[in-house]
Amino acid sequence: MKTAIYPGTFDPITNGHVDVATRAASLFDHLIVAVYDRPLKNLLFSTEERLAMTQEALKELTNIAVQSYSGLTVNFARSVGAQVIVRGLRVLSDFELEFQMALTNRKLAPEIDTVCLITSQDYAFLSSSVAKEIAMVGGCVEQMVPPHVTKALNEKFHRLGSEAGKRVQIVSLRD
Amino acid sequence: MKTAIYPGTFDPITNGHVDVATRAASLFDHLIVAVYDRPLKNLLFSTEERLAMTQEALKELTNIAVQSYSGLTVNFARSVGAQVIVRGLRVLSDFELEFQMALTNRKLAPEIDTVCLITSQDYAFLSSSVAKEIAMVGGCVEQMVPPHVTKALNEKFHRLGSEAGKRVQIVSLRD
Amino acid sequence: MKTAIYPGTFDPITNGHVDVATRAASLFDHLIVAVYDRPLKNLLFSTEERLAMTQEALKELTNIAVQSYSGLTVNFARSVGAQVIVRGLRVLSDFELEFQMALTNRKLAPEIDTVCLITSQDYAFLSSSVAKEIAMVGGCVEQMVPPHVTKALNEKFHRLGSEAGKRVQIVSLRD
Amino acid sequence: MKTAIYPGTFDPITNGHVDVATRAASLFDHLIVAVYDRPLKNLLFSTEERLAMTQEALKELTNIAVQSYSGLTVNFARSVGAQVIVRGLRVLSDFELEFQMALTNRKLAPEIDTVCLITSQDYAFLSSSVAKEIAMVGGCVEQMVPPHVTKALNEKFHRLGSEAGKRVQIVSLRD
Amino acid sequence: MKTAIYPGTFDPITNGHVDVATRAASLFDHLIVAVYDRPLKNLLFSTEERLAMTQEALKELTNIAVQSYSGLTVNFARSVGAQVIVRGLRVLSDFELEFQMALTNRKLAPEIDTVCLITSQDYAFLSSSVAKEIAMVGGCVEQMVPPHVTKALNEKFHRLGSEAGKRVQIVSLRD
Amino acid sequence: MKTAIYPGTFDPITNGHVDVATRAASLFDHLIVAVYDRPLKNLLFSTEERLAMTQEALKELTNIAVQSYSGLTVNFARSVGAQVIVRGLRVLSDFELEFQMALTNRKLAPEIDTVCLITSQDYAFLSSSVAKEIAMVGGCVEQMVPPHVTKALNEKFHRLGSEAGKRVQIVSLRD
Repeated sequence: MKTAIYPGTFDPITNGHVDVATRAASLFDHLIVAVYDRPLKNLLFSTEERLAMTQEALKELTNIAVQSYSGLTVNFARSVGAQVIVRGLRVLSDFELEFQMALTNRKLAPEIDTVCLITSQDYAFLSSSVAKEIAMVGGCVEQMVPPHVTKALNEKFHRLGSEAGKRVQIVSLRD
Repeated sequence: MKTAIYPGTFDPITNGHVDVATRAASLFDHLIVAVYDRPLKNLLFSTEERLAMTQEALKELTNIAVQSYSGLTVNFARSVGAQVIVRGLRVLSDFELEFQMALTNRKLAPEIDTVCLITSQDYAFLSSSVAKEIAMVGGCVEQMVPPHVTKALNEKFHRLGSEAGKRVQIVSLRD
Repeated sequence: MKTAIYPGTFDPITNGHVDVATRAASLFDHLIVAVYDRPLKNLLFSTEERLAMTQEALKELTNIAVQSYSGLTVNFARSVGAQVIVRGLRVLSDFELEFQMALTNRKLAPEIDTVCLITSQDYAFLSSSVAKEIAMVGGCVEQMVPPHVTKALNEKFHRLGSEAGKRVQIVSLRD
Repeated sequence: MKTAIYPGTFDPITNGHVDVATRAASLFDHLIVAVYDRPLKNLLFSTEERLAMTQEALKELTNIAVQSYSGLTVNFARSVGAQVIVRGLRVLSDFELEFQMALTNRKLAPEIDTVCLITSQDYAFLSSSVAKEIAMVGGCVEQMVPPHVTKALNEKFHRLGSEAGKRVQIVSLRD
Repeated sequence: MKTAIYPGTFDPITNGHVDVATRAASLFDHLIVAVYDRPLKNLLFSTEERLAMTQEALKELTNIAVQSYSGLTVNFARSVGAQVIVRGLRVLSDFELEFQMALTNRKLAPEIDTVCLITSQDYAFLSSSVAKEIAMVGGCVEQMVPPHVTKALNEKFHRLGSEAGKRVQIVSLRD
Repeated sequence: MKTAIYPGTFDPITNGHVDVATRAASLFDHLIVAVYDRPLKNLLFSTEERLAMTQEALKELTNIAVQSYSGLTVNFARSVGAQVIVRGLRVLSDFELEFQMALTNRKLAPEIDTVCLITSQDYAFLSSSVAKEIAMVGGCVEQMVPPHVTKALNEKFHRLGSEAGKRVQIVSLRD
């Protein structure tokens, strides 16, 4: 039996993540979507919120579990008996970081392999950052994230206002 | 009549921006240089300072206006009746971000097109960040920005000292 | 009045080319789609065939003309009174070549500017080469090229057989 | 049961290919290494030679088969009941081509997914082309290909001389 | 006599830096490893710590000196009589930044040239950031940095705890 | 004493090559510009012509020699007692090929190091291929190559006509 983990921040989960998770769930016997706890980075949603949104978005898939983790990704993989780390490749700039992570992880845990799925054309240029930035300034993200995530983004920015904005990295209009 | 906007942070405007604006002004009937307000990011210059420096740098062009805006870029384009968003393409890493922005903007506003101008060879590796970092450590930026911007940069760093430095992202000597 | 040229080999024209031409025709007063004669390269279709297919594919657009040309692109632009060269940017690897061409063209003809349109997401990874390679081995190209081009590709490969294959550059399965 | 194909030209198989095939064989129940017939491209080795060398190189793996194929890769995958196409990602320039192929293949056969394995650090910059070019000028390729392939390369260049050289694409010293 | 500087943050020095410094020391008569002071960026180690670790790591090399500096890199080069700036090229994304820095430095100081050494395959995807992130979550960095740096990293994270974490940029698991 | 080789095809030498050779000659005690014989590739100029043009272009430099060679570049380096291979880095796509060559060469000859010089901004997008393609269609290459090379290009295309064209790879207007 092959168990795989699909690690990420999922701040929040996008349609692109759902696509990768769905395809990974059909490739492997068991898939654990691993939500990185990462308390040191300024995220928009809490670990609990990210776990709940991710679970809701993937509830149709029967052979998956959603768990949070901290520490080394390969240590988490070992602790759940996974042989595979799944990653979605999105745009070109992803590739080097993924290459670096995959090779570093192999040095740390040679028995675990990294498998990359190429993101669907529809989501090739979509990221959590883009969705957050658009939602922050009141744009429509319905084509980018599941409905409950759209709602959560709107509530978060409505409730926190500029406080939430501080947790969003502005990626557009780079100088 | 074709109206275009040329959006950016312009913190501060460089000779590369002046080159792109000049060429865009000759391609379209009316050009609005749109200075993004972005209060949430740590910029070196205030919106007023960036507006004033941009206006001064482009005062020779007769069919342009300089305005600040906030919110979605496509909403600003619509509000001023623009059919076109102009962007300058500089180095390779620009391309993906611009691709992502252009495709995202088209989803949000299919009637507005993005037009990219390739930055002149002289400015192919120039950015506001580079100019700020060099000015911060006392280097000469005369070939990079208009004279009044050189003056503004020197004053800013002289007056604010290390406080200004906190607003400059160090890009060189990455590990 | 702004006249633009949209130069290319168009061997054959794809839906991505149609998308770029349509958008360019709405940006400029007059658009000349310029089919490069290039007798020295091994193309699949003759200049006449490429001209005819391109004309058929763009017949809905009223402010365009389709012409063949040889020699320097900037000289052709000058000869038809164009101020602008339009290019579609597709994938990352395009960018450097386009950068090189745009800067070279500006050295040769400083009065003519290059304007890049970012290819729609649906065609972001589509090229004439891909369409030819798939058609050659009997695959379906209906989503990639206009119907009359699908027909022309099938006829060409049926009639010429392996002779046509020699004119197709194999791009997949690179070692 | 999951069946995967690992398609390629394998002209000749390198240590990098062996690494990817070995890892793919441990991820899936059955792996078919699919040697593309490609009669139209100027290859160094015949299909029979490439099949034999590939079989010899992978003879330790028990759940694999080596087969040649022609036509569309997705059609071959369907004909052998495979749900997965495996590809090795090597250097950055691979990525776009792989992206293009993966997305094109998904359009042609949505039920088949492409899975990318990141090439080991030792083989990150190794390709069949590099091995052929070095062998052609008498260099040592022992660290790059299995021993029987080293022998085959040396024999081929010894026997064919400059005739073999015509089938080698020179990649180094690009102008 | 040729004097070169090898500038960097060295926060901390990795085996990749040691490799570049060793090779640069054999190319030039005298090499000054220049530790950038950079008080404005959130570094993990103090300038004194970085100087000491770098000196310890390179103590076998007889024609080098380790010095800290602030201000423009080209001004430091001039002040020590260096004609050359050495940089290690690691991954593709390095290249543009290095290109930008090299061209900017040439504008500021045309008499000083930048020489790039390509990082060894073993260190092609290694960086100070990766080493810090792995050490922070308790992973083993013995293959990445010299022994005394491993010790310093472990002590730093043990002593400072989450305080140290704030000075580490999380690079993995980008959304 | 440090001896370096600067290998290339030089078909023909451009101003970018002259720039790199000039800088390399000031970095090392002795520089051998090594013109690759490469009889198997379709070059525009013969080895004798390339040698003569290169010698003429670099005649001002006193510590250089121009020689042709065949076989492995590292073997040539050894045969002339060189410790260093110099390469010019031009555009991004160069980098991976240079990385591949540098790492391959180090495997073949660990005692020889590769040193990369970043091409001046003026020549960042110039190549022999671009110069040949422009000269072929009658464009002006005076800013790209030395005067005697301009003359040689014009004579070659005048004398050989379309025969010469077959030896020029068309790089512009890729589909």
